[in-house]
Amino acid sequence: MTSALKNKPAIILVRPQMGENIGAAARAMMNFNLSDLRLVAPRDGWPNPRAIDMASGALDIMPEPQIFETLHEALADCQYALATTARRRDMVKPVFTPQGAMPELHKHSKTALVFGPERTGLENDDLALCNGFITVPTNPDFASINLGQSVLLLAYEWMRSIDGTPDQELPTGNSAPASHQELEDFFTRLEKELEAGHFFRDEGLRPTMVRNIRSSLIRATPTEQEVRTWHGIISSLIGNKTQKKA
Amino acid sequence: MTSALKNKPAIILVRPQMGENIGAAARAMMNFNLSDLRLVAPRDGWPNPRAIDMASGALDIMPEPQIFETLHEALADCQYALATTARRRDMVKPVFTPQGAMPELHKHSKTALVFGPERTGLENDDLALCNGFITVPTNPDFASINLGQSVLLLAYEWMRSIDGTPDQELPTGNSAPASHQELEDFFTRLEKELEAGHFFRDEGLRPTMVRNIRSSLIRATPTEQEVRTWHGIISSLIGNKTQKKA
Repeated sequence: MTSALKNKPAIILVRPQMGENIGAAARAMMNFNLSDLRLVAPRDGWPNPRAIDMASGALDIMPEPQIFETLHEALADCQYALATTARRRDMVKPVFTPQGAMPELHKHSKTALVFGPERTGLENDDLALCNGFITVPTNPDFASINLGQSVLLLAYEWMRSIDGTPDQELPTGNSAPASHQELEDFFTRLEKELEAGHFFRDEGLRPTMVRNIRSSLIRATPTEQEVRTWHGIISSLIGNKTQKKA
Repeated sequence: MTSALKNKPAIILVRPQMGENIGAAARAMMNFNLSDLRLVAPRDGWPNPRAIDMASGALDIMPEPQIFETLHEALADCQYALATTARRRDMVKPVFTPQGAMPELHKHSKTALVFGPERTGLENDDLALCNGFITVPTNPDFASINLGQSVLLLAYEWMRSIDGTPDQELPTGNSAPASHQELEDFFTRLEKELEAGHFFRDEGLRPTMVRNIRSSLIRATPTEQEVRTWHGIISSLIGNKTQKKA
């Protein structure tokens, strides 16, 4: 994860009403490594104790939010700004998904993501200042997402766009994945014991059964330790059988 | 957006403590079209008035959450379950990013996303019941995300995995994008008026300037209406000049 990219977007909250949402936005920003928070005419002024409570410490470790009178001033040093809107606006500007917006942000060195006030959203005069819009795809029958959640989703998409975590990993701790030979030795032993136990009643089906047994365990990519455990299971089951016969 | 997919994951909250988080989870689920909420041993029982307050109506329109004593019972009908964990666990199971997990969910017809209690997260006995883990990539210096936010991010990823919204659209309302000919006519007129205004002082630079003027407007993919507006701008500016001269 790269933490020092120059083009991290500013998060601009325009006329936010509830301190709780400012705090939730700050927390979400820190979760995903953004720190340039700008507030345009916050209803209850700044600082706001409810914001600090809701930020879970984020406002203590990030730079002090900048306060502006107008969106115009908040955007002064930005080259490219995208506004979040819940609904289609009658304005000819590109509309991005959150994912689709990220490559656009990476094209510029100073960018901003602009969020409107709770309930009403951004006014047309605010939208006119932005280069395009972002609409989060939601259930049309229950579309309303909260301001803090919108910031969270966009901040998450930002981190996703720079994060190098592989989509899937298999951490095996201290035990390496078993080698082909270790698995082969295990299956050879298992089949020998199954033979002794008359497991293969139909010689015609035997190749299929052997393949299926192998398949079910190999698919799990077992570790060396797990193969040792399965050896122990065979020993234990043989022992039970021997004891029962005795 | 497809809303009736059979394999929508169940959201299972294990021993959730705060009703607010259950409500936020329900709201996030409805935002992204999930509705199978299961609660394992919620601390304050069920129903929970704080959950209902925080759900912004989601709990009124989704099916009643199912309540279970154990995760084992909550998972009974599921074929594949992924547990969210904030940190590496000492267990050999695949670890997915939220995005990476979605293709796995689509392979099965009944799946579950399992979330642990606030602060402590899932216990090892819970994790042992799940097929793999999901870890949201976060800022390692400020990694803690809230239970409701975790559900929001996973529900969002689920919708993203089935949503067909193009990454970028340019809605042009009632006005179609201008045709090549309309733009050509506009630029021809503009260049003629610029010629009359002695704009092109250096004939050697003229081809470059013409190209740059065209480039800056064509890059915006203007609509027919916008080209008409630009024609009006030329007329107006010529008029000003004529008036000034008069």
